[in-house]
Amino acid sequence: MPDRIYNFSPGPATLPYPVLEEAAKDIVNFNDKGIGLIELSHRSKEFMAVAEESEALIRELLAVPDNYKVLFLQGGASSQFFMIPMNLLGSGKKATYLNTGVWSKKAIKEAELFGDIEVAYSSQEAAFNRVPKDDEYNVDADSEYLYLVSNNTIYGTQFPDFPDKDVMLVCDMSSDIFSRPLDIKKFGIIFAGAQKNMGPAGVTVVIIRDDLLDKAADNVPTMLRYKTHADKDSMFNTPPTFAIYCVGRVMNWLKQQGGVAAIQKRNQEKAALVYSAIDDGEFYRGHAEKESRSLMNISFNLPTPELEAQFIAEAAAIGLDGLKGHRSIGGCRASIYNAFPREGVEKLVAFMVDFAGRNG
Amino acid sequence: MPDRIYNFSPGPATLPYPVLEEAAKDIVNFNDKGIGLIELSHRSKEFMAVAEESEALIRELLAVPDNYKVLFLQGGASSQFFMIPMNLLGSGKKATYLNTGVWSKKAIKEAELFGDIEVAYSSQEAAFNRVPKDDEYNVDADSEYLYLVSNNTIYGTQFPDFPDKDVMLVCDMSSDIFSRPLDIKKFGIIFAGAQKNMGPAGVTVVIIRDDLLDKAADNVPTMLRYKTHADKDSMFNTPPTFAIYCVGRVMNWLKQQGGVAAIQKRNQEKAALVYSAIDDGEFYRGHAEKESRSLMNISFNLPTPELEAQFIAEAAAIGLDGLKGHRSIGGCRASIYNAFPREGVEKLVAFMVDFAGRNG
Repeated sequence: MPDRIYNFSPGPATLPYPVLEEAAKDIVNFNDKGIGLIELSHRSKEFMAVAEESEALIRELLAVPDNYKVLFLQGGASSQFFMIPMNLLGSGKKATYLNTGVWSKKAIKEAELFGDIEVAYSSQEAAFNRVPKDDEYNVDADSEYLYLVSNNTIYGTQFPDFPDKDVMLVCDMSSDIFSRPLDIKKFGIIFAGAQKNMGPAGVTVVIIRDDLLDKAADNVPTMLRYKTHADKDSMFNTPPTFAIYCVGRVMNWLKQQGGVAAIQKRNQEKAALVYSAIDDGEFYRGHAEKESRSLMNISFNLPTPELEAQFIAEAAAIGLDGLKGHRSIGGCRASIYNAFPREGVEKLVAFMVDFAGRNG
Repeated sequence: MPDRIYNFSPGPATLPYPVLEEAAKDIVNFNDKGIGLIELSHRSKEFMAVAEESEALIRELLAVPDNYKVLFLQGGASSQFFMIPMNLLGSGKKATYLNTGVWSKKAIKEAELFGDIEVAYSSQEAAFNRVPKDDEYNVDADSEYLYLVSNNTIYGTQFPDFPDKDVMLVCDMSSDIFSRPLDIKKFGIIFAGAQKNMGPAGVTVVIIRDDLLDKAADNVPTMLRYKTHADKDSMFNTPPTFAIYCVGRVMNWLKQQGGVAAIQKRNQEKAALVYSAIDDGEFYRGHAEKESRSLMNISFNLPTPELEAQFIAEAAAIGLDGLKGHRSIGGCRASIYNAFPREGVEKLVAFMVDFAGRNG
């Protein structure tokens, strides 16, 4: 293994090193067959087996019921912002959205093109520093679904539990899927870009209940209908073969780690180390309210922007990279997804203590 | 280099081996920076440089004028089938399509959702064995564009020259882009999935004249507007970073080969070898009419389906893989894109001569 930096980037993000090594080998010579992984026809028996394994591991790790399809789509989570309402809504139909950050705002904007959208809760006035509890908003009985973003990458907030309302959930889990067990039955659609907890950028995993596949109006283009992709096992057109392969390799790694329950425990431990360093004194301030804190992205501030810049630069110099916060709220951010190693977290915490001691 | 098979797959297809080696190295440790290529944030200076180089090489190799944007999109060429009319047409607007195979048929189906589509030519009755000459069809003066597929992968047909009509061309070049020089000024939009002549599946290159970027109606979703991606240099959302990197590496390889004029000459020579073997006697029959023959995909038949099956099996046994024709027309097909080596073509031709001698 080369000397690796600790990469706190919010995504594309740190991947398990054994997966990188496998991918490197298979790219030049897949399973020693004399052909590179990315040269394989998507209809070859070799690649079909790859795609089937990726799907099977997703189903196993998240205990996806049989009445849900797992799709590998393109266009990023951003394309789901319009595909969901384009497929599920239409004139006179209503959906409820929770506005907990930039990604939900973008989803709301697209949904408004297709239906009557009610924003039942917004933390925008508080710089999106929290997510709501169930008793803080209502969902109209005629709402087709309740839309939420489970983890808000920029602000470091996360729903500790999913809403328990009498409505189907539709959830953008781009930044925390596979970080904890899920009760899939609560959801109509779960979607996530791969580039945080699943693999490289370039594929979006969509887990969709099968009664929702065929709700699109006749004028929806073929490629934008969920049914098109479900009917062809995500091979209606050429899929992003490399990304689907990597997702399978990451899932295989996750299974070896003990699955989502085991990784959840490790994620809790890793995040607790950083939050302890933040809460220990007045030097660091967490952006999120304590009850909304994310285990994936930890956004925090130092006493001044100058100290933040110095912190980021000194950290980078010792191999702690990508700690700059998102431009919309500034400060610092440590993204510590499933594959981010505990040793990197410990090194960050030691640096935080040292830096505060020298500059506090 | 491992013992490589000759991969005649129509796509994903053979890539230059040095590109596979570079990708393998960069995936585990990009430029020896201690971070993998697919772990790099798309907003990092390292990846921004990668994307800029990929675009610059595309522009250089095809001599793309300054008033055209080069976009890296997702969703495959199939997503351009609806994005083009969704952006350029609308109620009362007309476009003309040439129906030369499955891919143009699919594009016509999607375009009909958005405008008045005239199919000015179709070779469907002749199993798509030819493409038209200019004097075989007319384009209405009020047509917004003339749509064609430059190379038809399944049938092995290709436009030897592009239409010279008084109308802007919109062209699906998925299977022959970068195989020959182009006069970009004739085109409003050129698009191509990467997985034949550019790299792995997972990115679609769109070359679009800048006056066409902002023609979409207000109700078109953000992600489906060309302007969205043009304004953000294809970084409106997380792009497929690995595929964009590979495209740049393939372009770099193509430049080292002498560029598109040099590769065109080699493509002509490679294809001539196979067509000579087909035309030498009665044993093999080419699917395409001679004047419509493709330099990229060569579809041909043997006297009987049984001999075709035997041909494909014997060829595979000596490392000539992927020669089975598309299920829609059967027979055999040799896809010999830019990166397919001449030695593989020579080996195929020797096998064809031998097989015909033994079975003719």
